Amino acid sequence: MQKFVSTGIEGLDAMLYGGIPEGNQVILAGGPGAGKTLTAFEYLYHGAKEGITSVFFALEEEPERVIENAKLAFTEFKDIDALVKNKKLVIDGEDLVNLLKGGTSSDSSAQYEFGKVISNIESVVVASGAKRVVIDSLSVLDMMISDPFAYRRAMLGLVSKLRRLGVTSILTAEMPTPERNKLKFRTEFFIFDGIIVMYAKGEEEKRMLAMEVIKMRGEKHSFVTTPYEITSGGINVISAEGII
Amino acid sequence: MQKFVSTGIEGLDAMLYGGIPEGNQVILAGGPGAGKTLTAFEYLYHGAKEGITSVFFALEEEPERVIENAKLAFTEFKDIDALVKNKKLVIDGEDLVNLLKGGTSSDSSAQYEFGKVISNIESVVVASGAKRVVIDSLSVLDMMISDPFAYRRAMLGLVSKLRRLGVTSILTAEMPTPERNKLKFRTEFFIFDGIIVMYAKGEEEKRMLAMEVIKMRGEKHSFVTTPYEITSGGINVISAEGII
Amino acid sequence: MQKFVSTGIEGLDAMLYGGIPEGNQVILAGGPGAGKTLTAFEYLYHGAKEGITSVFFALEEEPERVIENAKLAFTEFKDIDALVKNKKLVIDGEDLVNLLKGGTSSDSSAQYEFGKVISNIESVVVASGAKRVVIDSLSVLDMMISDPFAYRRAMLGLVSKLRRLGVTSILTAEMPTPERNKLKFRTEFFIFDGIIVMYAKGEEEKRMLAMEVIKMRGEKHSFVTTPYEITSGGINVISAEGII
Amino acid sequence: MQKFVSTGIEGLDAMLYGGIPEGNQVILAGGPGAGKTLTAFEYLYHGAKEGITSVFFALEEEPERVIENAKLAFTEFKDIDALVKNKKLVIDGEDLVNLLKGGTSSDSSAQYEFGKVISNIESVVVASGAKRVVIDSLSVLDMMISDPFAYRRAMLGLVSKLRRLGVTSILTAEMPTPERNKLKFRTEFFIFDGIIVMYAKGEEEKRMLAMEVIKMRGEKHSFVTTPYEITSGGINVISAEGII
Amino acid sequence: MQKFVSTGIEGLDAMLYGGIPEGNQVILAGGPGAGKTLTAFEYLYHGAKEGITSVFFALEEEPERVIENAKLAFTEFKDIDALVKNKKLVIDGEDLVNLLKGGTSSDSSAQYEFGKVISNIESVVVASGAKRVVIDSLSVLDMMISDPFAYRRAMLGLVSKLRRLGVTSILTAEMPTPERNKLKFRTEFFIFDGIIVMYAKGEEEKRMLAMEVIKMRGEKHSFVTTPYEITSGGINVISAEGII
Amino acid sequence: MQKFVSTGIEGLDAMLYGGIPEGNQVILAGGPGAGKTLTAFEYLYHGAKEGITSVFFALEEEPERVIENAKLAFTEFKDIDALVKNKKLVIDGEDLVNLLKGGTSSDSSAQYEFGKVISNIESVVVASGAKRVVIDSLSVLDMMISDPFAYRRAMLGLVSKLRRLGVTSILTAEMPTPERNKLKFRTEFFIFDGIIVMYAKGEEEKRMLAMEVIKMRGEKHSFVTTPYEITSGGINVISAEGII
Repeated sequence: MQKFVSTGIEGLDAMLYGGIPEGNQVILAGGPGAGKTLTAFEYLYHGAKEGITSVFFALEEEPERVIENAKLAFTEFKDIDALVKNKKLVIDGEDLVNLLKGGTSSDSSAQYEFGKVISNIESVVVASGAKRVVIDSLSVLDMMISDPFAYRRAMLGLVSKLRRLGVTSILTAEMPTPERNKLKFRTEFFIFDGIIVMYAKGEEEKRMLAMEVIKMRGEKHSFVTTPYEITSGGINVISAEGII
Repeated sequence: MQKFVSTGIEGLDAMLYGGIPEGNQVILAGGPGAGKTLTAFEYLYHGAKEGITSVFFALEEEPERVIENAKLAFTEFKDIDALVKNKKLVIDGEDLVNLLKGGTSSDSSAQYEFGKVISNIESVVVASGAKRVVIDSLSVLDMMISDPFAYRRAMLGLVSKLRRLGVTSILTAEMPTPERNKLKFRTEFFIFDGIIVMYAKGEEEKRMLAMEVIKMRGEKHSFVTTPYEITSGGINVISAEGII
Repeated sequence: MQKFVSTGIEGLDAMLYGGIPEGNQVILAGGPGAGKTLTAFEYLYHGAKEGITSVFFALEEEPERVIENAKLAFTEFKDIDALVKNKKLVIDGEDLVNLLKGGTSSDSSAQYEFGKVISNIESVVVASGAKRVVIDSLSVLDMMISDPFAYRRAMLGLVSKLRRLGVTSILTAEMPTPERNKLKFRTEFFIFDGIIVMYAKGEEEKRMLAMEVIKMRGEKHSFVTTPYEITSGGINVISAEGII
Repeated sequence: MQKFVSTGIEGLDAMLYGGIPEGNQVILAGGPGAGKTLTAFEYLYHGAKEGITSVFFALEEEPERVIENAKLAFTEFKDIDALVKNKKLVIDGEDLVNLLKGGTSSDSSAQYEFGKVISNIESVVVASGAKRVVIDSLSVLDMMISDPFAYRRAMLGLVSKLRRLGVTSILTAEMPTPERNKLKFRTEFFIFDGIIVMYAKGEEEKRMLAMEVIKMRGEKHSFVTTPYEITSGGINVISAEGII
Repeated sequence: MQKFVSTGIEGLDAMLYGGIPEGNQVILAGGPGAGKTLTAFEYLYHGAKEGITSVFFALEEEPERVIENAKLAFTEFKDIDALVKNKKLVIDGEDLVNLLKGGTSSDSSAQYEFGKVISNIESVVVASGAKRVVIDSLSVLDMMISDPFAYRRAMLGLVSKLRRLGVTSILTAEMPTPERNKLKFRTEFFIFDGIIVMYAKGEEEKRMLAMEVIKMRGEKHSFVTTPYEITSGGINVISAEGII
Repeated sequence: MQKFVSTGIEGLDAMLYGGIPEGNQVILAGGPGAGKTLTAFEYLYHGAKEGITSVFFALEEEPERVIENAKLAFTEFKDIDALVKNKKLVIDGEDLVNLLKGGTSSDSSAQYEFGKVISNIESVVVASGAKRVVIDSLSVLDMMISDPFAYRRAMLGLVSKLRRLGVTSILTAEMPTPERNKLKFRTEFFIFDGIIVMYAKGEEEKRMLAMEVIKMRGEKHSFVTTPYEITSGGINVISAEGII
């Protein structure tokens, strides 16, 4: 019997007909400003509130800044600091500048450095007993590894490690455009169990944010493009369909 | 007299005016989330139920997960485990991470590794006496071999081997977009006997899945783009044409 | 006085205002599933029936399979085997896998291998006294030769040889898309005397096959895009114009 | 409690629901002729008037010319020279030609040269005690560093330095087109805290300038595309929304 | 006072407001099947009839075939053979296969070979005292020289030679598409004095040929896209504008 | 106080709200046949008539031909020869073929050759005391330097030299298409002070020429796309706006 992990975001759970199938590794892809980091954060926040240890692994901002920005955006989430303090919500990360400042800049050394990042993620997950993981963002790989082939191998190594850890993960990915009709997936995304996209739709005058589930292994899901807002009480997905 | 192999999916058989010509090697191409793996699985499932030994060779997921996901999606297929147990349905595969972790990452070593994959497929087919094969998915080749020329040779070697084995195969292939009007075939697809595409059509608000037979050597086929759903009782192709 | 070689396909002859000018080398380009191989086959079949020795040189399928597929598609052509037997219809070919398995995979060795293919075609034509030739398909060159420059030289060598042999040829070529508005010709096509394209037109819901003569040296021709069907009695081009 | 830095441009502050979050590094991207340099200048000008030391670091024009052009465009800003004189407004820069004339033209030497530019920016900021910085423009990096990978590392080094300096910065970036629907972001932009775009919209006959906030970490912002004019009294953003 | 060279094609002269300015080197670009070779041939034919020695230099067909095809297309031009016999119309050329079969296939040797082609053209022009030249087609350069930079230098050498010879030339060039809205000029075309394009316009159902003068140094010209037909009496340009 | 240099073309001055700011280096970009060379020539012609020494530096045609073509196009400009004779209008240039025939064809030697071109331009400007310069065209750089990075450095060196000479320049640049909606600027254009584009607009049937000011540092300008004609009395810009 399949178990679903609630994202804590009611409307997104509805789009997923329950939640993310346990053990899935999900890409959350979107253009700049779509709220990927906040959405991923909220997923962990609700998990932590339910007592499930959750790890946020920041690769593009300092961990402190992630917490700060989340508190600024979600002013109604009063207990973020408390969850961090009692180690239900673990915010860790790597300093991107350090990662990239290694002695050499060859792809092989970058792969070695990224191998260490994967190791660190593993250590944090094992030490904390986390069941939910967010990695923000995969696009850092773009900055570390120039060869597309080496890039795919590194991404594969990461997914493989997360599968073995048995966690249910969301990995954010930057898209070069905020608009849907220009979206093009990297072929290597196919190794992930799910793909959710966040983008701006609408005309020039007024953009609106919307979300769409492209793929989710192990369950049916909505095919409806669903608008959402970033509110002080969390991501508000305005789903037109009922929850199953 | 040409023999047709039923896909077990009634509407798809109708689109194919009977089924897949025996001995054909068919590409099932589609974007993420189109249900390629499930469709290919169902083809084997129905074969196995009819007593025809069928091999699913997984290159992007572990064999166990393939079975698990199929059972989750097709809850009405109660006898999957039984078919696996009596070896009518053989779920095998290679660990992609192992494949890619070989000593060197050169194209020639990747070709050598892929040669071993082809050997393993051959062994499983010969040992089991299978008549139907699924390989899921060809896109793994993209991750193993960076040179397009070497890629084509590897794909050719695979098709050639399947032809000599006399099996009727479906090979899934990832397309970088879920939408039809962006589809572009790789030129090397021409060496296959058939091409079926699965994609999302419709506007932003609401996507619908649809299927289309692009090419099938040895038979006439429908040119109609036909919608389908993934249901608990299998892929439901809503064909408007009668069955021949 | 120019002589025309009938294609045996009434509607196509009408589009060509008589047939293919004798001695022309014609590209028949189209997407997957357009029926290029069958159209080229029918051209030879009608020639053979009129007593003109005709050679089909298969580069992407085994010769036996070409005959088999033609018989399956054109069930009204009862005398295919007889024509083959009395050597009016010669189906020869090269095993693509063998071609590509040569000791080295460099472009120069591929060119050498392709030189041998050209030699073999010459031998078969000279030995049989053929006046009509089909080569199916040119796209195999894509799989043998990676350098576009070497590719063009090889194609030029082939056309040059066919011209010296004095035959009237159809050479099939794969296009990466089944739709017309995406067609883009390779610049090296200009060395051929004629270009005919076959493609799917119409909207998503229902595709239709259509044919168009783009270029034919030595004669006027129709500029009308003309629909066709693949029927058991041959390619049926539904020309709206009368025959000259 | 988050602090906002007013841009001094009333309508842009309204689009930002207050201003730029303190400590953010913001990309101001736009096509040729959109007024990026003037907008960035005005941001500093208003800061300087409020007594906040502000540094304009010119990489594509000489500092003198920046001041000259600003005075020509903003004739109502009578006190530019006075602000420069009392060192509230510091206009510094590097000579692009000198930067590029280094002994070698390799990427590693370019990175070294750019490292010196970053050092110089740091010195000026530290010496002046500046809280606001403009770098005009990032596109000079395109002319110094040819390898996209080295380019990303250099940009990362710059952002990292600005973060450590604790300044609130606007960095201008050239887009190759003046029109919005062709905008495509460089993936490395994701390391910045905010992205604002300036572009021409409207039909061929008559273009209009408009501004849009794509992303701003640490705050909500407008999603409305808002027209603006360059007037003698500054950038006039015609916001339809009220100020919070 | 500028002198104009009549193209002999009345409607084209009208589009050119008189003809081609004497001494201009004009590109005649078009997709396959547009009739470039015939149009260029007719230009020389009318010159030869007026007693002006005219040279057709064939690079993609044998000279004999050029004459043959022209006679087949323009059945009303009864005196082609006579003009060839009395050396007013000189049809010369190079064997492309020979050109490309040189000992090495490097760009430098190709440039050397092409240098010889230019020499040969010069010899023929000088020996015959020709005032009009056609080179059919420039696209052969594409097959000889792979490096775009070497290609441009070779093209420049050719134009430079023609200018020094004082001839008025038409050089044909293949475009990869028969349709106008996909036309894209090679930047090196700017070194030519004129550009005329020939293409198919209209919808899928029925294509029509049309001609357009893009550029002609030293004169005004029509900007109207003008349909034309290939008739037995020559190219018939259906110009809606009167002749000046 | 900013000084404006009149272009001598009344409608263009109106679009520029006065003229080109003194000391600006302006790109005049356009497709083939747009009249770039003539427009740039007219700018100098009017300057020379007002007694301002003006230099036309031809890189793609011989200086004699530039004068000849200008006289043919602008038959009402009776005094071109006189202005040339009294050295108010200086037409100089480099032989492109010579430039490209240098001993080696490496980028470094091309840069060296281009460095000499810049030196020659400097000498002519200094010797003549010119205040206005035209360089026709920048696209020759494309033919000399293959590496985009070296290309940018060479362009930068040129702009830098012109700035130091204190001249107000127009530099023409070829675009590969005559139509506006395909325009894409080279990123290195941002180092110029102004960009004006000239292109064909309108439908297939009938093209019209139009001009648009994209950018002009140091002044406001019109955003209206304005039609123009090439007449015997000069470029006639049909501006709908009044002159300031």
